[in-house]
Amino acid sequence: MWPEPSPRSAFSARRARLDSLLPGPKLFTSGLSRPRNFHDNPYPFRAESHFLYFVGAALEGSILVVDGDRTALYTAPPDAADAMWFGPRPSLEELSRSLEIAVRPLAELVPQPESALLPPQDSTSAAFLEDFVGREIEPSGGDSLEGRDAALAEAVIALRLQHDAAAVAQLRQAARATAEAHREGRAATRPGIREAVVRGAMEGAIVRSGMVPAYGLIVTTAGEVLHATTSTGLIGERDLLLADVGAETPEGFAGDVTRVWPASGRFTETQRALYEVVLAAQSTAIAAVRPGVRYLDVHRAAGRKTVEGLVELGILRGDPEDLYHRGGAALFFPHGVGHLLGIDVHDMEDLGDRAGYAPGRARAKNRGDRYLRLDRDLLPGMCVTIEPGFYRIPSVLEDPDALGDLRDAVQWTVLEKFSDVRGIRIEDDVLVTEDGADVLTREIPKTVAELEARRDAGRLSAPP
Amino acid sequence: MWPEPSPRSAFSARRARLDSLLPGPKLFTSGLSRPRNFHDNPYPFRAESHFLYFVGAALEGSILVVDGDRTALYTAPPDAADAMWFGPRPSLEELSRSLEIAVRPLAELVPQPESALLPPQDSTSAAFLEDFVGREIEPSGGDSLEGRDAALAEAVIALRLQHDAAAVAQLRQAARATAEAHREGRAATRPGIREAVVRGAMEGAIVRSGMVPAYGLIVTTAGEVLHATTSTGLIGERDLLLADVGAETPEGFAGDVTRVWPASGRFTETQRALYEVVLAAQSTAIAAVRPGVRYLDVHRAAGRKTVEGLVELGILRGDPEDLYHRGGAALFFPHGVGHLLGIDVHDMEDLGDRAGYAPGRARAKNRGDRYLRLDRDLLPGMCVTIEPGFYRIPSVLEDPDALGDLRDAVQWTVLEKFSDVRGIRIEDDVLVTEDGADVLTREIPKTVAELEARRDAGRLSAPP
Repeated sequence: MWPEPSPRSAFSARRARLDSLLPGPKLFTSGLSRPRNFHDNPYPFRAESHFLYFVGAALEGSILVVDGDRTALYTAPPDAADAMWFGPRPSLEELSRSLEIAVRPLAELVPQPESALLPPQDSTSAAFLEDFVGREIEPSGGDSLEGRDAALAEAVIALRLQHDAAAVAQLRQAARATAEAHREGRAATRPGIREAVVRGAMEGAIVRSGMVPAYGLIVTTAGEVLHATTSTGLIGERDLLLADVGAETPEGFAGDVTRVWPASGRFTETQRALYEVVLAAQSTAIAAVRPGVRYLDVHRAAGRKTVEGLVELGILRGDPEDLYHRGGAALFFPHGVGHLLGIDVHDMEDLGDRAGYAPGRARAKNRGDRYLRLDRDLLPGMCVTIEPGFYRIPSVLEDPDALGDLRDAVQWTVLEKFSDVRGIRIEDDVLVTEDGADVLTREIPKTVAELEARRDAGRLSAPP
Repeated sequence: MWPEPSPRSAFSARRARLDSLLPGPKLFTSGLSRPRNFHDNPYPFRAESHFLYFVGAALEGSILVVDGDRTALYTAPPDAADAMWFGPRPSLEELSRSLEIAVRPLAELVPQPESALLPPQDSTSAAFLEDFVGREIEPSGGDSLEGRDAALAEAVIALRLQHDAAAVAQLRQAARATAEAHREGRAATRPGIREAVVRGAMEGAIVRSGMVPAYGLIVTTAGEVLHATTSTGLIGERDLLLADVGAETPEGFAGDVTRVWPASGRFTETQRALYEVVLAAQSTAIAAVRPGVRYLDVHRAAGRKTVEGLVELGILRGDPEDLYHRGGAALFFPHGVGHLLGIDVHDMEDLGDRAGYAPGRARAKNRGDRYLRLDRDLLPGMCVTIEPGFYRIPSVLEDPDALGDLRDAVQWTVLEKFSDVRGIRIEDDVLVTEDGADVLTREIPKTVAELEARRDAGRLSAPP
């Protein structure tokens, strides 16, 4: 399996649709690489997402103008001195043929102050683009756009919200490489090693697939830390390992999958019981995904199911619906049930909540819903993650404000019995179809039985 | 093998030495993370090198003030809301105890316009630091410092040029992880797979060691592209694979090693012959490394030996010394023989040529020497790479300017026989000792015999 590029016709179709939604000149830059510890040692270049969507190639320092017949890609011609260091680059003519778009030298692009644009992410890329529009651009300023820029944001969102066939194919490729990484990670897990050993196996698998990690991967036994960035810990005999790991295709599309498995190969009774609660919440949420459903209701369905499960286990005491309304889910599952997935792992989050929240909707203030990144009515072609969880987070469970009158609803002595669970999250990538949902990452083992069988299965199919 | 941190006394000693070289306030920032495709999806944070050198911990958004008794680290206190996402952070008191330095809230740092500073690498980090000095800072502007900033650069260079015991220990750790990555890469190589499979094995090994890649790794069959960034190609039966791969410790110290091995496990006669030429040039250069030797002379020794080898193979015709002076080495080995190695893979290149070139020395203009990043008289404790090469670079060999009157000295029909060699580079990390040199990366197989034995050896010692 090697990344397959999208047909070039997909990009011209996207540009044409954009033109029909918003006529007039629109500028997109690929941006510039960011320095790491010194200028000539940059981070791996990642083109700006909107540029990737309309061009499909990570051409650093380029600008795409979408404007009917004047649509063209502007980039620097190959430089003879660079060829020695970076290899021969195609001529602008060759680039034009392979990308099926007019390509012109960057120097020919005259400043177009009237152009609509979306801000690139860092200051240097913003300054680069400023030269071609003659106005100031705030880097990462996509949440406060005005005028034609805001109109461009809405037009791009209208396109990118509902994935076309090429985008869906990319998401499926990302899902396959993500599945491979998870398989390698499970096979590498055993007690007594560092978390980094599993992480290395997973990152290595992603690179081997011709892709890159789509985000800062999480591979940790500290599952209660929602965005744990380090993997330095030792894996204990009774630990659960949480891996939130996804691959990104060369066109930028992301996978985003979380699995939790026992280091020993066997869940304890308590781990299994809580795992089944989260899995039931996830199944309930996935079953709710279909066109016309409001995503907030999917989120709430997961929360209600979580509370029901916790009541059954005796961790919470009371009427589930009442407990849910009092924040019983948020206490153990304080984040949103998921987000848009596409070229960004939180798709179009560079535009703030504009993409995730439908016009007229805004983030709720209550604990259970305030971190929800998405609240739209689902449409065919949307791709969302579904990722409920259960976490014992000290800073939440010890916070009187967070607890409120739920303090008496928690059966603390029962909760204590589940102390071998720090955090569980189960996350899949779900495409909304015409009449339901397609779980793109369904092949990644998820049931207790599958995960307990993982050791032998992983070993048998591991490469030499 | 897991990264061992340096003793904390190493950092206080470095700060004290800096104070003795340049009294008065000096500010170093760790910098801020760079956004990747959106603000909340940053690249993995890498602290600024000078900060790492004096603090040894990658504390984002922090500032170190070195100023005698007023020396302190300023950083933001832990935030309760962040704990849920990123885990509990130590209090400033705990941080002070573990880092053995005074730690104060960032908000208490009053602007110090008179402070000397070295510019951070990106605009956002520069803007962050500007608030604490009340003057403009050009990001990556380390090559054009003035006044006290220039004095600070010289003082830091004086320290970082000659590695202390803690730095040498870090370099040895980086070398060990780099060796492990190369071992995995050789074991993973076979014809018919993508270059990315080997790259994945090597990157995975680095991550598994608790480290990160020190630079954009090069794993390619296109060895003639000096900084090939992609690994998308298929490996052919007769290809040589070039891997320029190094690990970086959590304190930032780098390994930087290039090896070339045949995909099939066997060099062809022509590949072997050219490989031996490069290896002889490298041995000659390494043998020349000792205190007092001018690095330019090491570079030239490698070039001369290369020309001698090419004359012996019949690729060049004429008197070797005459050919060398006419640029005969540069035609096939156009880059410098190496560079400083330390916390940066090109150590202190953020300061321009100030670190690499001794006062009064500047880059030569001629083809053979102009890319040389280092021209100092070697001192004990310096660490340098030694990395000669042989490349058939079309943009050089087809360039009349580059060829000049060497066109007639190249035996083109003989060169054509070596068409199964695209590029060879052999690179080790060499520490200058009191009376010679210590090759930190000597355990990484390098001779033809070692590399041809690599397949079985690699398999036998590969982890399950």
